[in-house]
Amino acid sequence: MTSSHRPSARAVSQLRDVRLTRHYTKHAEGSVLVEFGDTRVLCTASIEEKVPGFLKGKGQGWLTAEYGMLPRSTHTRMDREAAKGKQSGRTQEIQRLIGRALRAAFDLEAFGERTLHLDCDVLQADGGTRTAAITGAMVAAYDAFSVLKSRGLVESIPLKHFVAAISVGVYKGVPVLDLDYLEDSDCDTDMNVVMTDAGHFVEVQGTAEGAAFDRATLNSLLDLAQQGIATLNTLQKQALGL
Amino acid sequence: MTSSHRPSARAVSQLRDVRLTRHYTKHAEGSVLVEFGDTRVLCTASIEEKVPGFLKGKGQGWLTAEYGMLPRSTHTRMDREAAKGKQSGRTQEIQRLIGRALRAAFDLEAFGERTLHLDCDVLQADGGTRTAAITGAMVAAYDAFSVLKSRGLVESIPLKHFVAAISVGVYKGVPVLDLDYLEDSDCDTDMNVVMTDAGHFVEVQGTAEGAAFDRATLNSLLDLAQQGIATLNTLQKQALGL
Amino acid sequence: MTSSHRPSARAVSQLRDVRLTRHYTKHAEGSVLVEFGDTRVLCTASIEEKVPGFLKGKGQGWLTAEYGMLPRSTHTRMDREAAKGKQSGRTQEIQRLIGRALRAAFDLEAFGERTLHLDCDVLQADGGTRTAAITGAMVAAYDAFSVLKSRGLVESIPLKHFVAAISVGVYKGVPVLDLDYLEDSDCDTDMNVVMTDAGHFVEVQGTAEGAAFDRATLNSLLDLAQQGIATLNTLQKQALGL
Amino acid sequence: MTSSHRPSARAVSQLRDVRLTRHYTKHAEGSVLVEFGDTRVLCTASIEEKVPGFLKGKGQGWLTAEYGMLPRSTHTRMDREAAKGKQSGRTQEIQRLIGRALRAAFDLEAFGERTLHLDCDVLQADGGTRTAAITGAMVAAYDAFSVLKSRGLVESIPLKHFVAAISVGVYKGVPVLDLDYLEDSDCDTDMNVVMTDAGHFVEVQGTAEGAAFDRATLNSLLDLAQQGIATLNTLQKQALGL
Amino acid sequence: MTSSHRPSARAVSQLRDVRLTRHYTKHAEGSVLVEFGDTRVLCTASIEEKVPGFLKGKGQGWLTAEYGMLPRSTHTRMDREAAKGKQSGRTQEIQRLIGRALRAAFDLEAFGERTLHLDCDVLQADGGTRTAAITGAMVAAYDAFSVLKSRGLVESIPLKHFVAAISVGVYKGVPVLDLDYLEDSDCDTDMNVVMTDAGHFVEVQGTAEGAAFDRATLNSLLDLAQQGIATLNTLQKQALGL
Amino acid sequence: MTSSHRPSARAVSQLRDVRLTRHYTKHAEGSVLVEFGDTRVLCTASIEEKVPGFLKGKGQGWLTAEYGMLPRSTHTRMDREAAKGKQSGRTQEIQRLIGRALRAAFDLEAFGERTLHLDCDVLQADGGTRTAAITGAMVAAYDAFSVLKSRGLVESIPLKHFVAAISVGVYKGVPVLDLDYLEDSDCDTDMNVVMTDAGHFVEVQGTAEGAAFDRATLNSLLDLAQQGIATLNTLQKQALGL
Repeated sequence: MTSSHRPSARAVSQLRDVRLTRHYTKHAEGSVLVEFGDTRVLCTASIEEKVPGFLKGKGQGWLTAEYGMLPRSTHTRMDREAAKGKQSGRTQEIQRLIGRALRAAFDLEAFGERTLHLDCDVLQADGGTRTAAITGAMVAAYDAFSVLKSRGLVESIPLKHFVAAISVGVYKGVPVLDLDYLEDSDCDTDMNVVMTDAGHFVEVQGTAEGAAFDRATLNSLLDLAQQGIATLNTLQKQALGL
Repeated sequence: MTSSHRPSARAVSQLRDVRLTRHYTKHAEGSVLVEFGDTRVLCTASIEEKVPGFLKGKGQGWLTAEYGMLPRSTHTRMDREAAKGKQSGRTQEIQRLIGRALRAAFDLEAFGERTLHLDCDVLQADGGTRTAAITGAMVAAYDAFSVLKSRGLVESIPLKHFVAAISVGVYKGVPVLDLDYLEDSDCDTDMNVVMTDAGHFVEVQGTAEGAAFDRATLNSLLDLAQQGIATLNTLQKQALGL
Repeated sequence: MTSSHRPSARAVSQLRDVRLTRHYTKHAEGSVLVEFGDTRVLCTASIEEKVPGFLKGKGQGWLTAEYGMLPRSTHTRMDREAAKGKQSGRTQEIQRLIGRALRAAFDLEAFGERTLHLDCDVLQADGGTRTAAITGAMVAAYDAFSVLKSRGLVESIPLKHFVAAISVGVYKGVPVLDLDYLEDSDCDTDMNVVMTDAGHFVEVQGTAEGAAFDRATLNSLLDLAQQGIATLNTLQKQALGL
Repeated sequence: MTSSHRPSARAVSQLRDVRLTRHYTKHAEGSVLVEFGDTRVLCTASIEEKVPGFLKGKGQGWLTAEYGMLPRSTHTRMDREAAKGKQSGRTQEIQRLIGRALRAAFDLEAFGERTLHLDCDVLQADGGTRTAAITGAMVAAYDAFSVLKSRGLVESIPLKHFVAAISVGVYKGVPVLDLDYLEDSDCDTDMNVVMTDAGHFVEVQGTAEGAAFDRATLNSLLDLAQQGIATLNTLQKQALGL
Repeated sequence: MTSSHRPSARAVSQLRDVRLTRHYTKHAEGSVLVEFGDTRVLCTASIEEKVPGFLKGKGQGWLTAEYGMLPRSTHTRMDREAAKGKQSGRTQEIQRLIGRALRAAFDLEAFGERTLHLDCDVLQADGGTRTAAITGAMVAAYDAFSVLKSRGLVESIPLKHFVAAISVGVYKGVPVLDLDYLEDSDCDTDMNVVMTDAGHFVEVQGTAEGAAFDRATLNSLLDLAQQGIATLNTLQKQALGL
Repeated sequence: MTSSHRPSARAVSQLRDVRLTRHYTKHAEGSVLVEFGDTRVLCTASIEEKVPGFLKGKGQGWLTAEYGMLPRSTHTRMDREAAKGKQSGRTQEIQRLIGRALRAAFDLEAFGERTLHLDCDVLQADGGTRTAAITGAMVAAYDAFSVLKSRGLVESIPLKHFVAAISVGVYKGVPVLDLDYLEDSDCDTDMNVVMTDAGHFVEVQGTAEGAAFDRATLNSLLDLAQQGIATLNTLQKQALGL
């Protein structure tokens, strides 16, 4: 199978062009524009000097994430969630995923009674916004902790692992890496994988959109994801000059 | 490793006692009380003679699910979602999962412009409510379609596959099947798996609660799930007298 | 007039079969399934070790109730209130009634700065859910206070009176006791009565559904209610082994 | 017992001064300021040329009511319900009561596919706002139907009965008519009664605020209500020049 | 141009009859019915002995305003905002304007940690409700501070300036003062102006409803507003006996 | 007076650097990033082939605007409106202003039964977001109508006037043009002005933040605004190649 079966002519195991632009906006402690091809997500990391009620007095920090899409980040305009007065189930599902992924990256007990807020806002969507968001938020969070360190508020960056995320799926019968919108809307199986730079899994979320999938397919998809995430971890560290 | 490390003294690959009680309430076309040990979920299937707007005139049906917990189904009382005025992100995530799982079980194009509503309400929670809900809702949905058939509204039950679901996880370092509450609140990895009776995957959702997990662990968990779901499919068919 | 005019063939002053099943679920301090014929309501009583803001520091307790119906507890499926984002006026009216009724049963000043939450959830509806709820919640609350006493947190159960409730109405021109759904949907006057075991009134709520009713009818209805509630009080005490 | 035990020095069976001012505002088809002593409620009746969805095409009308209190109609300022984003349970209970009461007054099948909206807004509260609202809304509704008739849209006013409402209660051990705020906040039993001008009951809602009440007390309260409502019916008709 | 071009036959610079009725309701510290012709707004001023969280401990007071329209204060009935569960953008815009205007009238640092709540509720609308509300709220607030002073809680009324407001607009090509509903619904430019009794501007809000307007027109409108507000300030002081 | 009194060292009548970047995102019919110095707002224009209910069948179009700020577009993180479940009063006020301004720019009767949705989302805030939004939305809307024209759906762009907007204010006693955040948070008077390229006013909104302002100051502010908007109109046309 050559790459030609993909709309983008990419090889099955080929990522889109990934760009991580730090300091994209000026107010946030960490601010990264992450691009996976035409998917663009602005990830900001904001430090707040308090924790939610359930953690008060426990001497540890908290990390939480929110996700949103600009109304016309998509092919046809979506209603604005703020105007409708509620976040969709999909939005909540995604922001919960981002939060869990990033809490696996940092040691919450090592940065004091502070909250790190990650805001991932999609400026332009072309498939894979949640995995791009996780990959970018990792860099934004790292930057925010660097600011804390430079201000003398923590001794070191409370890093456990770098995490990154990628989607994989079965497109026209063939497992492929990093689905874009055209592939995503026409695939049989869609899986989002979050891993650490130690090659371990943080999240695996696979869904059969059409036909159910067998164990061999699952294994192929995980192989692709593993390889793609290793590349993303390298790009994250390069962006940070590590 | 003997079973002695589980609070319930179950073997690592042992399900809890599973009971499927049909016709549990009288109004719904399908009504099943599903019990996985002390977890009890009432699953009702209701047929409505119309489809949502986006499907009108397309000649096909729709299937959707809602999930709820009674306020004191849990160890300590939770706030009632109807009183708070919104469903939590967790609730929405679960009901979206149930809906996707059951849409994989039936052929939506084969039952006319009708909606099947699945309501899964937890009467008593002891871990694994979402997987019990899917397993029970399958039987309730089957019963509802039998009613449609007996009324002459469909020629046959629009079944594609039986689906069932189970949780697996790493408890005290060992992969185990069908986590109860004590295990669930103290496990490292938690995975919910939905499969068909053909042994294919509909959903795989694994989360590292503590440490990230490696590929070998993932494989052991999937082996356990595959075996457990095969048993659940048998129990579903026995309950339906198939 | 023989009983034959009632759909159920009951005598005009005959209650449906009433069952009170204690310890129906395991987490709540009190948990009672109450059945009036086919009407089934799960009543749980949960103790919380704090009071609402307006009572803080006053040394007394609080008792409050919430009511809900499972979406398919009824003949046709109702929308889920949690999904709609608000409780209906009917729901709020009923839960306020349950709360007032039960606050008449216990001495709020005698159980410390605690809240007793009563949750009454209708599993199956066949008329009279609110009066069944009050009758069952009385037993659940008693059980919860027994738990408090057994834990040494109160010296005695802060009981003032047993309360129970029943509906009465004018069905096909004749006053009858304990309306079921068929009668309820076709009656002229509907009255819910809450009384203590001393034979005194806590609540009287009568509504002319069709024609307004005269004083003589009102009196007949109250006679029926008084008699029915005396029976319910006996059943409550039997269930509790008093 | 002389009247001296009441804060207002009224006799036990004495109404406050009742005033019904028609055409209080200029836009509504019916607009009545009703005053029971210092309680002042503005009742408007608005005709809309359509019915709710569940009545479309059935050839009959609908009548519905809403109730509100201005934030500083009360002793201390209450939060504005529009700002809080929801109506309280009490508000909903009251507006449902007003609606039921007035639907008993008119023949819904006799005024075409129209809706009569009754808005009862409390300008100043001193006890008995809901019964004043019903009494005033009756006159406003009558005026609105007169407008319909004068426009040739109905042949006659679709009147079944005049309805009026009053509160009664046990104040310092003695049944009294028409509780004002001082009495209401310190009474043992509080009952709201809605009756027709034929002397029949539309609603009876009695609540034991403190001790439960016996049948004899109930009877005394109903006697008082019956007499008070007869007076109110006379005042309503006088106001309308009937 | 004679006055004859205005529906009311007023001269272009003529205010409607303005009445300020103090002590309109009895509970509020200040309660003023303000009438600009047929526009009637009830303005109450309520003192609360605390400030919002962001001001706690700062030793100063706060002043805030809310605005509402009774559902049938208008030509056709509007939905009740409390029933819809949210205030419209127009409502919020107006109450924010009233708040800013009145905060310019009083010295917030001079009345202790208290909040003055201004509630402006439209009983009857005929154009210019927001400017009538500001003009009446000024008098109600003054009365409330007089109460505070008479209770010895403040030494003097913390007055900076009297403020009043008026609308001006271009009606049939001619600038006019104090638009009524007929003019308002058919004008090209609509401007609301808030000024102090020193002749300075607190707010200027001009909107081209139809054609954009030129600088000369703007100047004419401001001239009219300035003159009208001077009259209103005089009426406010007369009402207060100053 | 030299420019030295402004934090940015700008002259009193000097705009910040203004940049208008068209085609900033790819899905919207019009997409413009507008920058006024460090203020950056993404304005998209989306065409929908239907109109709101109140315009159906009238043969004309509609134009509406929404506004939002990314949570960390500001100095300290704001709560996300979608998560809070409501838009603030400020947000609603601004989006209503943008809508009115742009409806003055186009002939709604000349583009068929379509809606133009303008979404203005603030990526980075440094003062003047609403005036930047109007200025950018004008260009995005023009682009969207060009798309309609190129698709043959309208014969010509239904332009009435170019509109642009700017803020002016009194900073440290001196009227200045185009307030940035530092000036905005410390100014006495703040005015937003919207004008057409014919030099006429669409909106004038001036607020005395501290002391009320006199007529002479108002005149100076309008002079500055008039000049600034002329420059903005030129920049808009240059950006569009007109």
